[in-house]
Parts: sequence; C-alpha cells; structure tokens
Amino acid sequence: MTTDTTVLDGLDFPTPPLAVADDVADLLFREARTAAEFVPGEVTDAQLEAVYDLVKWGPTAMNTLPMRMLVVRTPEARARLAALMNEGNRDRVLAAPVSIVVAADPGFHQHIPTLAPHAAGFKDVLEGQPETRESMARTNALIQAGYLIVGLRAAGLGTGAMGGMDFQGIDDAFFADNGWKSLLVINVGNVEGAGTSRPRGERLTYGQASLTV
Amino acid sequence: MTTDTTVLDGLDFPTPPLAVADDVADLLFREARTAAEFVPGEVTDAQLEAVYDLVKWGPTAMNTLPMRMLVVRTPEARARLAALMNEGNRDRVLAAPVSIVVAADPGFHQHIPTLAPHAAGFKDVLEGQPETRESMARTNALIQAGYLIVGLRAAGLGTGAMGGMDFQGIDDAFFADNGWKSLLVINVGNVEGAGTSRPRGERLTYGQASLTV
Repeated sequence: MTTDTTVLDGLDFPTPPLAVADDVADLLFREARTAAEFVPGEVTDAQLEAVYDLVKWGPTAMNTLPMRMLVVRTPEARARLAALMNEGNRDRVLAAPVSIVVAADPGFHQHIPTLAPHAAGFKDVLEGQPETRESMARTNALIQAGYLIVGLRAAGLGTGAMGGMDFQGIDDAFFADNGWKSLLVINVGNVEGAGTSRPRGERLTYGQASLTV
Repeated sequence: MTTDTTVLDGLDFPTPPLAVADDVADLLFREARTAAEFVPGEVTDAQLEAVYDLVKWGPTAMNTLPMRMLVVRTPEARARLAALMNEGNRDRVLAAPVSIVVAADPGFHQHIPTLAPHAAGFKDVLEGQPETRESMARTNALIQAGYLIVGLRAAGLGTGAMGGMDFQGIDDAFFADNGWKSLLVINVGNVEGAGTSRPRGERLTYGQASLTV
C-alpha cells in the first residue's frame, strides 16, 4: 500500500485506462483471493463499521439499502453458524475470527421516507406487497454484497465468501425476530499472502463475457 | 527521516482502518454518485475491457462467473433499449454515450471444467437443473454487478445504474439466441463533478444495518 510517507519508492500510480494505482487494483481485485487461512489478529467493530461506512454509499434501487450484516463473533454463535453450513464450509467458519452473515431485509421499506423522501409514499405501496419487497431486497442486497467484499479488502482484510449453507436454518436460528433473509456468509480475518493454498482459477475473457451492439 | 512535501503534495494516504487512500475511497464510494448528466468524451472498448479484466477477479460461487455484459453502443441499439426502459429511465439511457445491460447467463455451467477443474463433473449435474442454474446465475451475477460498478468507477467513469425496465422485453430483444437474463442497466460515461443535480440521499448507519452476536 502507499503508506510510506518518507520515500516515493514503492508508490504506485495508475496504469490507464484505470484511474486507481496498481497496488489498489491488486488489493481490491487482482491479487485478492478467497481466504481460507487466517493469521492471528483481531477484526474490530471499528474496522467493520468503517467498511460499512464506505460501502453504504454504493448505489441501490431507490436508495433502499436492504443489505444487513449479522456479525458472528462469540464462540457460541460461531458454533451455531458452523453447524448450519454445508459440511465442506464448517471448518472454514471455525478457522476465521469473525464471520458475517450477509442478509436482505424485506422490511427495508420502513426506511424509505428517510432514504428516498421524494418517493416516501412508496413505503405504503410496498407494505402490502411482501413478495415484491423480498425480491427487491434480495436483488439489491446482493449488489451490496459485491460492494461489501470490495470494502472489506479496502480495509486490508482477507475475505472468504461462501454460499453453501442451510439458508432456512440460518434464518430460523438468527433472524426469527427481524425477518432478515440470509444470502451468503463471508469469513473475515487477517491474512498473510494469498490466505489460501489453492491455485487460482481461470477467468472468462472480456470476449467470452460480453457482446457489443 | 524527512518528507518531501513538494513531491507529496496532492498524494493522499489512508485513514485507518481503511487501507486505501482517501482519494480512492472517495472515487469508488464516498463521492461517487449515480450519474445522470454526462459530458462529451467517448467510452472506449479498451476502457470497458480493462474494467472487466479488473472485476473478473472478484469471487463467485465455484468461480462460475455468470455475469455477462451487453454493451449497447450504436444509436439503433440504444433506441431499442431506451424503448424498453420504464418511462422515467428512457431519457437517461439516451443521454449516456454507452449503456451496459448487465445479465446472468444460465448457461454458465458450460465453462465449469475450465473455471473450476476440481469440480468439472458439476457441469453435467447442472445440465439437467435449469432452475438451479438460473438461480445460481442470478445470485452470483448480482454480486458481480456490485464489483462492476466499483470497477467502472475505478476507471474514472461515471455510472448510473437502473432497475426500472421491461426485463422480459429486453431478454426477447437482445438475448433470444444466448438465453442471458437481464438484471439491470448501467449508463456509463464521463462526468464532471457529481454528474447529477439531485441531493444525495441519506444512508442507514452501521447500527441500523447490522447486529453482532
């Protein structure tokens, strides 16, 4: 990172057409890996709040911000969560200092008068449309999950996202009161190097993933 | 040790706990707005390919990478797309130099042997499960859409994401051959300042959007 204030050696500059420095591109995307091995070091509430305060600015439909985060920190809660992951993901949860259950809140419409005052009346329209709310919450919270993974990396944290889990079981265990719907789990911690011993997977090329008309 | 303030003028450094410089945090999230007004200046294929080549590294389930991008560039195609947007979004499409229809590819499983060779057999399992494929594609492509919006900003581009559109009509008009499913449209162009005259919406606080157990 560009934190050395005494010398310019080691400072990175953007390679156009990117507008961020190479070390930033590496940190957020190019060298970041799905972490499975963490090194000692706490993940503080202050870190997670700073990450949220960064990614909360990302756009969502009508500024509805339906993503919610359950930060699973205590040994008891971590054991409950691990038991509800698919077998291959249990050890990964237990190996991390903190896991975040990323969820969607179908009750997001309660906040519309504050978040989108020009559309305040939409709160009452959505009150009677629980299926629309659930779909909107899921769509936009998943986009926000993308921001969140980038934001955790922007705080220098290792992230391991996983979707293999008992969604209904997690909702029953953790969200019986607030109605949140689990979407994925992200293990969060400090890493050295890649944080994984797996070889890096190939990626589709721009030509494979896009068309121009 | 001394700091050469002449040279360092204008360079920004991270404010912990973030590990990216303040100007990066501003560019990607804090000062970025949903752009509605673009200034002259082309968005090149090279720019969009560089953005894709950045965000393709973001994690997806089993490295399936189901997000696809339809880059809508010609006046004829842009008029067809605009006609399929909700009325309030038509002028926004027409005001942008380029729009990207972000889509999910339920045929992503064809690439599993390349992208996830350790799970190559999953390709045949998924072949007979079109509903599972459609759900997996949608979930992971939406997370990738979050990466994409950040990546476009990392290339210094203004982005205006919109979900108000005739999804089925767009799929019929543009994806009849490949089966892609449209998820959102992102207008892309060059902006000066905020690229919008709308006041910035409030955001939920960390305390409102998270719980810790």
